[in-house]
Amino acid sequence: MVNVEWSMIMKKYRVGILGATGTVGQRFCQLLEDHPQFEISALAASERSVGKAYKEACAWKLSTPMPENVRKIEVQPISPPLDCDIVFSSLPGSVAREAEEVFARAGFPVISNSSCYRMEEDVPLIIPEVNHDHLGLIETQQAKRGFDEGFIVTNPNCAVVSFAPPLAALDRRFGVESAAITTLQAVSGAGYPGVASLDIADNVMPYIAGEEPKAETEAQKILGKLEGEAIEKADFAVSAQCFRVNVIDGHTASVRVNLRETAELEQINEAISSFPSLDLHSSPKDFMIVSEDPARPQPRLDRENGNGMSITVGRIFPDNISDYRFVSLSHNTLRGAAGAAVLNAELLIDKKLI
Amino acid sequence: MVNVEWSMIMKKYRVGILGATGTVGQRFCQLLEDHPQFEISALAASERSVGKAYKEACAWKLSTPMPENVRKIEVQPISPPLDCDIVFSSLPGSVAREAEEVFARAGFPVISNSSCYRMEEDVPLIIPEVNHDHLGLIETQQAKRGFDEGFIVTNPNCAVVSFAPPLAALDRRFGVESAAITTLQAVSGAGYPGVASLDIADNVMPYIAGEEPKAETEAQKILGKLEGEAIEKADFAVSAQCFRVNVIDGHTASVRVNLRETAELEQINEAISSFPSLDLHSSPKDFMIVSEDPARPQPRLDRENGNGMSITVGRIFPDNISDYRFVSLSHNTLRGAAGAAVLNAELLIDKKLI
Amino acid sequence: MVNVEWSMIMKKYRVGILGATGTVGQRFCQLLEDHPQFEISALAASERSVGKAYKEACAWKLSTPMPENVRKIEVQPISPPLDCDIVFSSLPGSVAREAEEVFARAGFPVISNSSCYRMEEDVPLIIPEVNHDHLGLIETQQAKRGFDEGFIVTNPNCAVVSFAPPLAALDRRFGVESAAITTLQAVSGAGYPGVASLDIADNVMPYIAGEEPKAETEAQKILGKLEGEAIEKADFAVSAQCFRVNVIDGHTASVRVNLRETAELEQINEAISSFPSLDLHSSPKDFMIVSEDPARPQPRLDRENGNGMSITVGRIFPDNISDYRFVSLSHNTLRGAAGAAVLNAELLIDKKLI
Amino acid sequence: MVNVEWSMIMKKYRVGILGATGTVGQRFCQLLEDHPQFEISALAASERSVGKAYKEACAWKLSTPMPENVRKIEVQPISPPLDCDIVFSSLPGSVAREAEEVFARAGFPVISNSSCYRMEEDVPLIIPEVNHDHLGLIETQQAKRGFDEGFIVTNPNCAVVSFAPPLAALDRRFGVESAAITTLQAVSGAGYPGVASLDIADNVMPYIAGEEPKAETEAQKILGKLEGEAIEKADFAVSAQCFRVNVIDGHTASVRVNLRETAELEQINEAISSFPSLDLHSSPKDFMIVSEDPARPQPRLDRENGNGMSITVGRIFPDNISDYRFVSLSHNTLRGAAGAAVLNAELLIDKKLI
Repeated sequence: MVNVEWSMIMKKYRVGILGATGTVGQRFCQLLEDHPQFEISALAASERSVGKAYKEACAWKLSTPMPENVRKIEVQPISPPLDCDIVFSSLPGSVAREAEEVFARAGFPVISNSSCYRMEEDVPLIIPEVNHDHLGLIETQQAKRGFDEGFIVTNPNCAVVSFAPPLAALDRRFGVESAAITTLQAVSGAGYPGVASLDIADNVMPYIAGEEPKAETEAQKILGKLEGEAIEKADFAVSAQCFRVNVIDGHTASVRVNLRETAELEQINEAISSFPSLDLHSSPKDFMIVSEDPARPQPRLDRENGNGMSITVGRIFPDNISDYRFVSLSHNTLRGAAGAAVLNAELLIDKKLI
Repeated sequence: MVNVEWSMIMKKYRVGILGATGTVGQRFCQLLEDHPQFEISALAASERSVGKAYKEACAWKLSTPMPENVRKIEVQPISPPLDCDIVFSSLPGSVAREAEEVFARAGFPVISNSSCYRMEEDVPLIIPEVNHDHLGLIETQQAKRGFDEGFIVTNPNCAVVSFAPPLAALDRRFGVESAAITTLQAVSGAGYPGVASLDIADNVMPYIAGEEPKAETEAQKILGKLEGEAIEKADFAVSAQCFRVNVIDGHTASVRVNLRETAELEQINEAISSFPSLDLHSSPKDFMIVSEDPARPQPRLDRENGNGMSITVGRIFPDNISDYRFVSLSHNTLRGAAGAAVLNAELLIDKKLI
Repeated sequence: MVNVEWSMIMKKYRVGILGATGTVGQRFCQLLEDHPQFEISALAASERSVGKAYKEACAWKLSTPMPENVRKIEVQPISPPLDCDIVFSSLPGSVAREAEEVFARAGFPVISNSSCYRMEEDVPLIIPEVNHDHLGLIETQQAKRGFDEGFIVTNPNCAVVSFAPPLAALDRRFGVESAAITTLQAVSGAGYPGVASLDIADNVMPYIAGEEPKAETEAQKILGKLEGEAIEKADFAVSAQCFRVNVIDGHTASVRVNLRETAELEQINEAISSFPSLDLHSSPKDFMIVSEDPARPQPRLDRENGNGMSITVGRIFPDNISDYRFVSLSHNTLRGAAGAAVLNAELLIDKKLI
Repeated sequence: MVNVEWSMIMKKYRVGILGATGTVGQRFCQLLEDHPQFEISALAASERSVGKAYKEACAWKLSTPMPENVRKIEVQPISPPLDCDIVFSSLPGSVAREAEEVFARAGFPVISNSSCYRMEEDVPLIIPEVNHDHLGLIETQQAKRGFDEGFIVTNPNCAVVSFAPPLAALDRRFGVESAAITTLQAVSGAGYPGVASLDIADNVMPYIAGEEPKAETEAQKILGKLEGEAIEKADFAVSAQCFRVNVIDGHTASVRVNLRETAELEQINEAISSFPSLDLHSSPKDFMIVSEDPARPQPRLDRENGNGMSITVGRIFPDNISDYRFVSLSHNTLRGAAGAAVLNAELLIDKKLI
């Protein structure tokens, strides 16, 4: 039997990155360094970086070195055409709204980590293992917006990713009636320079601008159902209190959930841990890991699980007020941002939508 | 008009401290340095410190210098008699159970910060502003245990203190039906050496041994009613998920509350901020402070409010699932431990129970 | 004997603060809240704050509340006239150069914490206990620059303040031949937002822009001699490697020093600890404290010594290469910035130069 | 051409780990998980772990999961025989002295990370790239101590590893006359629980028990010359001031060096970056990396260079007092502890001493 690497027979998709110098843009470069399906062909960033080599334009902040293959790429302006097949966007909301539409209109599939289109009716908001069927919206989107071949697909806010997957598992099996979440979010979620050390050293910030509404509404959309040309949002209430804590990477969620059907503790464990994974390049072997250790999950010890793409859940207990409570954790810049977008792109290829 | 200091005409009560070398014991020394009603006359600690001058026995960890008046006191064993009128105890649970009873039986009022007696039926668990009438249990305790003049009075777990006061305010005015709390607790709550830096740097610990049950049951006792010779615990459910975060001092609580009566946001604010303070030496001018700043309370900026004895509340909002949510904060080693015990002692004097 | 408060008989000097909304500006407000000689009468800041009440313009970051007396003061532009007798400046270098000169020319004594004039030949760079005689430069300055009544007096870079005082003590007694310093500096030294948490959490920064040359040259000027109309800088070499560490307040310096005369360890201790303090309102009782504890000084435990105005020195030992080594610490935003400027102003009053 | 993995034709050496449950012991398990030359066959630890499965006995603190191959191994007492060919020891000094000798006497090669034998005359203290010829001491050791086949080989203190390699490069080329070092060391160097968070959060510790003498003497031995049956220690003075900072992994050293011969900056750079690497399994491609970025090395960004086995050097400048200064960094639990021992074992195999 001959075992031939996929990458040896397939031409790779050429990727352009919008917002390439930011923290999520850097993660894109890191994740795509040796990716079998993608290769970076274009980098775009704001005015002040344009014309410089990426190496000069970017204040690299990751602990692995800047990949050789991007160091000399000249940064281009954020406007089409870009020499690529797909566009990954990690633009800040302020510029993303216009730029992403322009690229989609110019025929590019836009895989966006920005928040601006997530809650638009005709834009898929995707966690591949949870709601890949929502990609059905793409056709609607193209029709409605007059896009020819291009489209916009988004991944959720990083806080949402830390708790939506176990809720999906419980909802599918027992029906979720309500979910109250308190998040303890890492500073990398704010990008760079982001959170000032004077604000977070020996401190907790009880407020992250705009985060609580995002966490509440995006979860309902992701767990909603595609009905015809629209998503019918999940009919359970979500409450989110969002805190910033002194952690570099890894969002932790304290979750209390009420279920529509009675469930034993063992069934809760099983529903979460057996939720199916996908077979994409960046999919972890275990989408969700349930830890039996009473002191887990912990961001520093569990964020890298599944190469930063697994969700780790622990401390599942019956609750005095809600039916169950648990703690859930995900890597906010991998599963919650750049890795999420890459996984979405892999899904789109798998579904032959690119 | 002659303005004479109270301390100039009154003899001070002489205080003995059990567990004097620990972090809470050190706080006792700090708080009593210039106290108008108390002076430290005896320090007791475990075997290994006995016979040494306090200065030698104690690895002082506070940012103010060790008070002159305790430096040379010789540390004594933890057993009566101690040359003092009142005993403050910050013993670890393992030794507190026996030692505190022995001291009470020997005639000493024992003001305890330990957890072991807090939930005993005949032991008052006091936050002076909230339930000073529970001191009525002392008589029952003395009768039941055959104590002559001595007794044990306790203050709550430090996590409870961060959220019980605003619940008390809401319960008194609107009736609380349930309260779901997620705490973000400081490392000083675990004493010294306590939390290893390897466990909390760039991390969150989702588990504090024994903390969640304490937080759930103590709140119900404090907000309960003294009926005859016992406390009838408050009839609302409490759920607590307790996290350790990388903060030195200051426990933050994310609270969701259901009320029995309808209340407007403005009324909630008012019920909390107008809850009466007491007129004891260590009482803050404002027992509870409601901050309008959307990014408060923060441990580093608010823990010292009212000399570390005020509770700071903020981010009070209607909630999607519960009636209201808010964030509440207290200084865990002041209002939540040593300061709480000192305030209890002041209350006992004020009530002529010492 | 009648003990009358100074403040009851003296009119207070009215102070204007340039750069009032920054971290050092906030410290000025804090330090002057109950100052017997000064009262704040004017606050000035950049364009974007002008016209707002200080309360609205300033993101207050200190752990004590914003003083009542400044909350409603309307922020004015950074240009004379300001309704005040003295100007304290904590402007960033970029605007300080022009603004401070304009104020001095307009007749104001300018007490500056900015770096731009520190090394100018005719500008005193003062640590009151060390080189108050350098104030003799003021006359030269006024003559040379054509200032009428105004002038500029500066305090040193916060890193310098952590090691220059013990060097001054040793230089005066034994002569310093060279001093090699490695600093471990707190994040507050960079102002707000200053250091990004992503740069300093679980990290050390080996570089602070412009800091090493400042540390090397300012120390030589402070320890220099006023000869006629100029300072003859100290004739010893200074080497400084400057690091940023994950500490909120308190700069630590690792110092190695060669002396011109032989000295016993005991003499070194004595020379430092007996260096005279001054009798100004903000002077600490002990200008320098020598700790015998092998694990001190530590920023968190020692930065508040002398209300943040003492220098704490420890670990004085003979060195394998240099004559002696020691560790020295000062509070960088108090003794090293705002407190330094306030002390300079007190000195100027004491010397009848204001 | 047939490319056959070394591990497929060679029997692996079977390794026993003494002190297997500690932080360095855990690193051994992690590093040997897929090692081509070694496989773990025995785990030994203190009384309290003996008889338990490693999985139960060990509080795993690394961010990668505990390897499958060790989870079920039963922990044995720290005494021979152990079912293995080589012993790796990370025992605390108190027990290492006796245990390591016993194992060596019983015929085991003991690769030790403990400090107790490092400075013994007949024990090699090895950084493979720097002084592998010191292995010549083994024969002397066996003769002197009456060991038959066993012996003890040690690796240096983790602080020393951060600065000795660049000193070796400079000494070899220009001759080092003196080296003054200030270290900023990570908390993991103290093991687990090690440093209390209350001691290091918002703080610097200026003292690490026993560290400064180790740093000063070990460097001289490593850079010394094997003359006959003994090491003649390097004839330059070393001064070390050692600080603990709030960093998880990665020791940073601030170094000032005087050279015997004149050297240009460019030559310094070149001498360090061109120092030869070895061709062992755990050797990094680049033993030392010289960074041109003025803000490097940083622990969080550079400690993983070369899989945690490279030394990163930066900020090389002429100094005002010494000839040159620079900043050097190494991963203290990889290159400075477990990785060092594994590399020593690989070296011993390569030299056919095992």
